[in-house]
Amino acid sequence: MSSSLLPGVTGMRRQVPPATGQLRLGTLLREVHRDGAVSRTELADRMGVNRSTILTLIAKLAATGLVREETSATTGRAGRPSLVVRPATGQVYVLAFDVAVDRLVAARVGLGGTVLERRETARRRGQDDLDEVVTALAEFGGALVAAAPPGAKCVGVGASYCGLIGAADGKVRLEPTIGWTDVDFGPALGRRLGLGLPVAVGNEAHLGALAEHERGAGVGSRNLVYLHGDVGVGGGIIVGGRLLDGDDGYAAELGHMIVNPYGGRPCNCGSRGCLEAEVGESALLEAAGRTGGPIGREGVRAVVEAAENGDAAARAALDRVGDWLGIGVTNLINLFNPGVVVFGGMLSEIYRGSAAQVSARVNAGVLPVSRERVALRTAALGYDSTLAGAAELGFAALLTDPLGTTRADQDPTVPAALPE
Amino acid sequence: MSSSLLPGVTGMRRQVPPATGQLRLGTLLREVHRDGAVSRTELADRMGVNRSTILTLIAKLAATGLVREETSATTGRAGRPSLVVRPATGQVYVLAFDVAVDRLVAARVGLGGTVLERRETARRRGQDDLDEVVTALAEFGGALVAAAPPGAKCVGVGASYCGLIGAADGKVRLEPTIGWTDVDFGPALGRRLGLGLPVAVGNEAHLGALAEHERGAGVGSRNLVYLHGDVGVGGGIIVGGRLLDGDDGYAAELGHMIVNPYGGRPCNCGSRGCLEAEVGESALLEAAGRTGGPIGREGVRAVVEAAENGDAAARAALDRVGDWLGIGVTNLINLFNPGVVVFGGMLSEIYRGSAAQVSARVNAGVLPVSRERVALRTAALGYDSTLAGAAELGFAALLTDPLGTTRADQDPTVPAALPE
Repeated sequence: MSSSLLPGVTGMRRQVPPATGQLRLGTLLREVHRDGAVSRTELADRMGVNRSTILTLIAKLAATGLVREETSATTGRAGRPSLVVRPATGQVYVLAFDVAVDRLVAARVGLGGTVLERRETARRRGQDDLDEVVTALAEFGGALVAAAPPGAKCVGVGASYCGLIGAADGKVRLEPTIGWTDVDFGPALGRRLGLGLPVAVGNEAHLGALAEHERGAGVGSRNLVYLHGDVGVGGGIIVGGRLLDGDDGYAAELGHMIVNPYGGRPCNCGSRGCLEAEVGESALLEAAGRTGGPIGREGVRAVVEAAENGDAAARAALDRVGDWLGIGVTNLINLFNPGVVVFGGMLSEIYRGSAAQVSARVNAGVLPVSRERVALRTAALGYDSTLAGAAELGFAALLTDPLGTTRADQDPTVPAALPE
Repeated sequence: MSSSLLPGVTGMRRQVPPATGQLRLGTLLREVHRDGAVSRTELADRMGVNRSTILTLIAKLAATGLVREETSATTGRAGRPSLVVRPATGQVYVLAFDVAVDRLVAARVGLGGTVLERRETARRRGQDDLDEVVTALAEFGGALVAAAPPGAKCVGVGASYCGLIGAADGKVRLEPTIGWTDVDFGPALGRRLGLGLPVAVGNEAHLGALAEHERGAGVGSRNLVYLHGDVGVGGGIIVGGRLLDGDDGYAAELGHMIVNPYGGRPCNCGSRGCLEAEVGESALLEAAGRTGGPIGREGVRAVVEAAENGDAAARAALDRVGDWLGIGVTNLINLFNPGVVVFGGMLSEIYRGSAAQVSARVNAGVLPVSRERVALRTAALGYDSTLAGAAELGFAALLTDPLGTTRADQDPTVPAALPE
């Protein structure tokens, strides 16, 4: 299921109807999961079904413990108290993991997307191996499950990984900084967790894009470009509401768009002048003359703050990096005609410090028809967009088939807390 | 309908079911239209319906004159003659128009995609206006309709245009070479044709991509990148089987991907170092020292032939242009992880003359995971990929609702040739 869920990074939006009833239950649960509290009437309207059908669907989901009905604080039409449907945030959760270059994060995320508890540790760059990463995450996971309230049920596990992920098999294909190839990370973590649940794995920038589209800076946009800075530069692109995956799941590698082919900086990929080489962490720190100091987000933030405080070298470094970032963004807007471009991870800080340069390039190079449309924003979910995307991956199976996933016999390690 | 069909450039692939029966008829007709002769059994298999259902559907389409059944030349299972369903190529047709920078083309294209008759004239660069273009095309169109056999029915009109086309209103937004803005080309041509049919308009490179995906070098590929050279450089991109349109229909403007921001050639768009500026017709002719000679495809072909015959200046020009083309293609493959990249229009000639340079860049700059997958090809439909795409646009309404479109009362200027 790890591999079937991985095309599921897109697949979770491709509704292959198992049956009309199940499909409707999934649709209803997705609405409530995404929006929090939704009234009966609103749900019926959105789904185009009548009142009696919506009541039946709500009753089925409520019986499994997935949603509950409550009187809303606000009153409905004609002054009567309005009934809203809410996700069972505390009772139904997933484990979400984020393997970034320099940190490991694990969280228990409730239905509805609320982070209920999280744990984080630094990851030593270039020193970790699969076993070390999996051990650390599995320990976090075990502790999170143990700390869950009695009766709460874990319905899925999703992980964001800072590497290429094959759509067909879910394997991590490459991790340039430390040289792994073809690592079976998902199954290894699944075994170590021992929850009897598969681990769905997605590329960090793809998941960041999904999360920002679903719950962040890109809600309501059909076409979104997400740029993610995490030492390197990755991308996730939403096209017509769906994640751009490509033939094998490797699409949106915008960090390896060549913007400076002659005289550009060498890139980890072996090429030269890639966007990642020109705007990544090391490009900024070197341009600012800060190669021996703090690295990662602390290092990047320090440059942005120094520039704000008048440091000329920091300002010049951000101007340079912002110019290249603007060129990359210009190209992406001309290619995707998106409603929004979102800067996530460290690029969120870099964009804050160089928005003028980015805008100047966009104004000069984007065709007017696309320029008029697009908004440039930082990630609304901050550094947690990737973690939030991993949680969505974990919820995918439940949202496709709400009753199937909550059947107690699926998970031998967790007692049947939810009635069928 | 011109405007509703235009999102239809994508919309024609987005099957919003009007009713199960109509949807099935459309699906069946699309299969036959695309593949030519398809056996009953094969159709039933593809559509997942039983023998009696497929016979009913075929009978309905045959009764309207849209398809006919024939004994295949080859024999079927158990040596019995096999019955195949064929499109009524001679009887049901569209008018397809292609407004390129330097030529105007019109064709009568039969169901099944066969060009039954075509007319072409040169278009003087920078001298045409809307009225001149529409007059020439309407004359062609009138002659094509008049030459059609008695009883043949025109079911749609599609046009490819070398400019940006707004998805919401179908207007031509920009024609950089001669400076039009917001031209209502489709309605003007429709009025002049007087057929009582709307004219669906699409961007030439978008339509070239659709045609190559449907009938050309990209058949069977889920993800395809099409680069079109027509003085400038345009693009059409198929993502997961659908045309990438963006929020307003302006996506895939890959000619304005900046690859040479510092020191690059000025581009018509006002920017510098765009792919179009580095690999377009004038870049090649100038690099080859052939600025006073033939232009357009003759000029480009002459450079490629000269290089083949050992002309050093022509060889150097193609090497230079091929290098920039390779950089652009590298970026597109890293972004889209496509199965195939197709070079159309003049870029087909340029790619033939510089395939080694393009491949060298791709090998150096594309991530191995995407490089292993992709094939680079010239357009199988040659210079007619845009015209073929226009024909598909013309057929879109018929293929969505086969019976609705063939109702005789729809078109007052053409006698009811087809029984309902």
